[in-house]
Amino acid sequence: MHGTLGVAVIGAGRMGADHVRRIDEVISGARVAAVADVDGARAEALADPIDGAVACTDPVAAMDAPGVDSVLVASPGAAHEAALAAAFDRGLPVLCEKPLTPDPDSALRVLAAEQRLGRRLVQLGFMRRYDADYRTLKAQLARGAYGRPLMLHHTHRNVSSAPGCTDAQTVHNSAVHEIDVTRWLLDTEITAVRVLRPAPSGGAPEGLHDPQLIVFETADGHLVDTELFVNCGFGYQVSCEAVCERGTARIGDDRGVFVNAAGRWGGTIPPDFVARFAGAYDRQVQQWVDATRRGTVEGPGCWDGYAAAVVCRAGVQAQRTGERVPVDLPERPALYR
Amino acid sequence: MHGTLGVAVIGAGRMGADHVRRIDEVISGARVAAVADVDGARAEALADPIDGAVACTDPVAAMDAPGVDSVLVASPGAAHEAALAAAFDRGLPVLCEKPLTPDPDSALRVLAAEQRLGRRLVQLGFMRRYDADYRTLKAQLARGAYGRPLMLHHTHRNVSSAPGCTDAQTVHNSAVHEIDVTRWLLDTEITAVRVLRPAPSGGAPEGLHDPQLIVFETADGHLVDTELFVNCGFGYQVSCEAVCERGTARIGDDRGVFVNAAGRWGGTIPPDFVARFAGAYDRQVQQWVDATRRGTVEGPGCWDGYAAAVVCRAGVQAQRTGERVPVDLPERPALYR
Amino acid sequence: MHGTLGVAVIGAGRMGADHVRRIDEVISGARVAAVADVDGARAEALADPIDGAVACTDPVAAMDAPGVDSVLVASPGAAHEAALAAAFDRGLPVLCEKPLTPDPDSALRVLAAEQRLGRRLVQLGFMRRYDADYRTLKAQLARGAYGRPLMLHHTHRNVSSAPGCTDAQTVHNSAVHEIDVTRWLLDTEITAVRVLRPAPSGGAPEGLHDPQLIVFETADGHLVDTELFVNCGFGYQVSCEAVCERGTARIGDDRGVFVNAAGRWGGTIPPDFVARFAGAYDRQVQQWVDATRRGTVEGPGCWDGYAAAVVCRAGVQAQRTGERVPVDLPERPALYR
Amino acid sequence: MHGTLGVAVIGAGRMGADHVRRIDEVISGARVAAVADVDGARAEALADPIDGAVACTDPVAAMDAPGVDSVLVASPGAAHEAALAAAFDRGLPVLCEKPLTPDPDSALRVLAAEQRLGRRLVQLGFMRRYDADYRTLKAQLARGAYGRPLMLHHTHRNVSSAPGCTDAQTVHNSAVHEIDVTRWLLDTEITAVRVLRPAPSGGAPEGLHDPQLIVFETADGHLVDTELFVNCGFGYQVSCEAVCERGTARIGDDRGVFVNAAGRWGGTIPPDFVARFAGAYDRQVQQWVDATRRGTVEGPGCWDGYAAAVVCRAGVQAQRTGERVPVDLPERPALYR
Repeated sequence: MHGTLGVAVIGAGRMGADHVRRIDEVISGARVAAVADVDGARAEALADPIDGAVACTDPVAAMDAPGVDSVLVASPGAAHEAALAAAFDRGLPVLCEKPLTPDPDSALRVLAAEQRLGRRLVQLGFMRRYDADYRTLKAQLARGAYGRPLMLHHTHRNVSSAPGCTDAQTVHNSAVHEIDVTRWLLDTEITAVRVLRPAPSGGAPEGLHDPQLIVFETADGHLVDTELFVNCGFGYQVSCEAVCERGTARIGDDRGVFVNAAGRWGGTIPPDFVARFAGAYDRQVQQWVDATRRGTVEGPGCWDGYAAAVVCRAGVQAQRTGERVPVDLPERPALYR
Repeated sequence: MHGTLGVAVIGAGRMGADHVRRIDEVISGARVAAVADVDGARAEALADPIDGAVACTDPVAAMDAPGVDSVLVASPGAAHEAALAAAFDRGLPVLCEKPLTPDPDSALRVLAAEQRLGRRLVQLGFMRRYDADYRTLKAQLARGAYGRPLMLHHTHRNVSSAPGCTDAQTVHNSAVHEIDVTRWLLDTEITAVRVLRPAPSGGAPEGLHDPQLIVFETADGHLVDTELFVNCGFGYQVSCEAVCERGTARIGDDRGVFVNAAGRWGGTIPPDFVARFAGAYDRQVQQWVDATRRGTVEGPGCWDGYAAAVVCRAGVQAQRTGERVPVDLPERPALYR
Repeated sequence: MHGTLGVAVIGAGRMGADHVRRIDEVISGARVAAVADVDGARAEALADPIDGAVACTDPVAAMDAPGVDSVLVASPGAAHEAALAAAFDRGLPVLCEKPLTPDPDSALRVLAAEQRLGRRLVQLGFMRRYDADYRTLKAQLARGAYGRPLMLHHTHRNVSSAPGCTDAQTVHNSAVHEIDVTRWLLDTEITAVRVLRPAPSGGAPEGLHDPQLIVFETADGHLVDTELFVNCGFGYQVSCEAVCERGTARIGDDRGVFVNAAGRWGGTIPPDFVARFAGAYDRQVQQWVDATRRGTVEGPGCWDGYAAAVVCRAGVQAQRTGERVPVDLPERPALYR
Repeated sequence: MHGTLGVAVIGAGRMGADHVRRIDEVISGARVAAVADVDGARAEALADPIDGAVACTDPVAAMDAPGVDSVLVASPGAAHEAALAAAFDRGLPVLCEKPLTPDPDSALRVLAAEQRLGRRLVQLGFMRRYDADYRTLKAQLARGAYGRPLMLHHTHRNVSSAPGCTDAQTVHNSAVHEIDVTRWLLDTEITAVRVLRPAPSGGAPEGLHDPQLIVFETADGHLVDTELFVNCGFGYQVSCEAVCERGTARIGDDRGVFVNAAGRWGGTIPPDFVARFAGAYDRQVQQWVDATRRGTVEGPGCWDGYAAAVVCRAGVQAQRTGERVPVDLPERPALYR
């Protein structure tokens, strides 16, 4: 197709609103054609200022609105399975925010449905794969710049966790990024998980084990540790060091303006993921729009969503038991090879 | 206006081709409506793949093509004055690549013409003002984060100069960026220039004095030095350190993937300005499109082009004489205050 | 005592020779009074150029040589117990290279002997405690600059392992430094060890599991991971990041001259520990000399050597079993509190 | 000589006291044999705790004290000429704190006196030549690691100037280090000086032009700029970047513990030169002691002191006139080639 891609955005919460703004103001070759939210006023607030965009309370109605060529799912995870089914029925390409669905069983049903279609329709919103630094790192690893990768050291630090955050949520919402990035950077599957924990920080809410050291093993023998510290207080930091046979490569060091003042050298740490990954979100959506207009699907898909869900389940079990938990993935279906 | 902005791109050389690609693939809310180049085949090669874009050999014909709402001038500097005059006649907003025109006299004529129109139509392509780091630095200086700025130290290094490059061209093509950035960061005018020079590098072409130390004084008493080294051989580097009363702030340190390998720590230096300023070019054009659609002109304009031309002329004289050359600017016209 | 301290150096191998040179050329207030080595020619080669130094083949004879006030033990670990016993008999203060002895049982005998003396005579050569960066880090942790420490991330990389190096030796010779530094920085004891391992690097000798991730737990609930990579190929690197409740502090980043050249920014990585820890060795010996002349013993001692031996034994068991191995230390005797 | 070097320390002020402590506690192979100060109590306070050290009010008496083999001159600059003359009469090797003497004329007299002796006795206290980073930089430049040096960029920042500090003193006390380091790193003489100045910082005392940009030219065509900012407020920083034909090399970036805390990454800046150059002072004195015991003189000498004095005089004139001031040095005498 050569025309402008009409997108139905499902979900008008924080992520949905951000995507509406992005498609309207940043992305080339796409326009918002419909916005759906159970809260109709919220959908209208987003759709109204945009020429030709309609507001709906029903996701399916949004997909059926005039000019809709594709779907961006940004509703809560529990609503993803139904939205994806409706998109599959209509043959509409989808950019689906993570998670694919909240658990491995429902993810497996989506996977089966897409396989029955016989072609991929879904790109999953693991946006770190579109970050310039991660992409450079992957390219260096892929060409064997420093020999075979042996270990990854991840750090993932947040200022503070959301109210009511549980141990399990730190895996599903935070560590899931390291799970996907590990699989993608190393081009392999995760086969076991351990969660090791120091005495919790005084800055962590009652009941939360924070920080954690999550250790993954892969099918190709890599060892991958992740410092996950969601109440570090000082800012948002994501880094990754790949230890290879003849060298190491690290991304994610903070930078920007370098200052000497008040007896200190250095710079500031961003407060949240927006400063760090805004570009990755833009690139993700632009590349999805470009691929969709060319009639293809690129980037992570349902298999990646399913695999992440399986590893997350093992991770939560590892938190509970303190033991090494093996991860059992079925063989990767032909559609996703 | 709420529709898509139709742009006539004047000039289909390297910069013009890059802008055509950018508007077609990256920029939201704009489309290429016409491409003009004296070499008609070159214009056609760019216009043909784009729906609704026409190719012309005459810039004026391109401006008069259907759907043209605005002009992007990327032809050689000597052609700018005529192109701007045609755009002024038609009341079309312009994004004009630097230089405004090749010399102060012609720049002054453009300035006068825009003043006769009584409103600003021209944004000038000083893209560093759209670089994220320079913008953060300017914001910090503007809010007095470290007290009043006293000095700037610029470095501007290129792998190698273009064949036939002259001393004067190093001022007009390279140092002109430091001239504009200095005026913009410090919000003042340059009042004098000195050019100091070591014995030239063996890597410099015969006859070229490379590197140079160009020293500017401003109306507010700042001292600004620039190491300009256009045959450094090792990569493209642009940095700026602002020395203020209570601190210093520096941008432009190379970064990206940090590597330990083969007995060295560090990273790579980009070969040219694309890696460093690609984002700035994108932001520049997007913000020009956004402002133009809102009916406004923002960013640098004809006054900045004229002031740069006057300082460049003084800089070339300073190269020839080895002396401090005062810069004589008339008062800034009301339209540009 | 106010005179110059006469030192009997036991062992004329690499470490012994280095200490002889250090005492002769670098250290203030001490002189080499005797050198002992089973290879008499080696002892003579070191002693002969030094005024008043005698060479012996018997360590005890060296301790009884004229002008000997103290002993520096740099013989192989298996010879330490006997040398320490002879020094204890003579009441001579000792600087003993690590390890105290090769295993916990013999270390316990030394500990008991020193307790019977009723006073400390031994300083153990854990020289990292004298590195300026480690000391600054310890001071920051001790004053709670960033809240309570929660985790440490160590890295310990060598160009290549010595011929015939075994898994157990990587613990006894390399990880032992992280064991001591962990106990010292956090002022607590290690209570458990795990050794996790990726598939070995192709750069590792047949049979060696390299790299390893060694994870310690402490009595105060800290979690401490160590990347130990003794065949990394690219240089010698030792770093430590303390993750605390409100901040992190890291030491050990390579530095020195910062270079832009040949398309790269960065610097060189030292080939071995000498460049990194030469200053620490000098400070260690100077402070031992100073304390000894004042009649005191400071720095790490027999308890630290014993505790390290116990943790090393657990570490080797953890390598073999792949399991978490608890560390059982008796209560710290009163002499070492 | 193989015995311990007996040193007469002339001057018991801050520098003298520091050298007495250094020789007593840090330096190998030397001892304080005498301390002289016009304030006898000050001399006694330093000498009394040291076995065999005598206190004098007369520098000459100190040189004639028993066991004195050498002289360390740390008295005010105005007293240096007489002290050096007395040392020359006695054939005693001297380590003389900078300046050699306060002005070129007196420096020339000392130079002539040493030439009459027919051998070098004086090492001058330009301690930066003993800083590890400067030495590495010099070695890299000397072996042409990045091609021929073209420019140097120095920065020299202090928290605040001493009370009553004048423009001339900023040259004599601060920039003199860059003068010596420039001559030494580039192995050439300075042939001209310019001083350029922005409007002074509000943090500078009334009447002081701070910061300054001092630009040197050398006999081999180098251009050398120095940002001298003695009231920067935030700490002590000295850096030097050598711009060569194929690369640049920089030393002096602050380092040590790297911290993430309170929304910032980075580290602390030392308050004064002690943290930065303590090691250089130690190495300087140790190498002077070692060379003196071997009967040689190494390091900077009277010629370097004279050349620095001549450049300082030109620098002060350049401050006053705002013009380029040529530096006229006679030919280097044979003794100093």
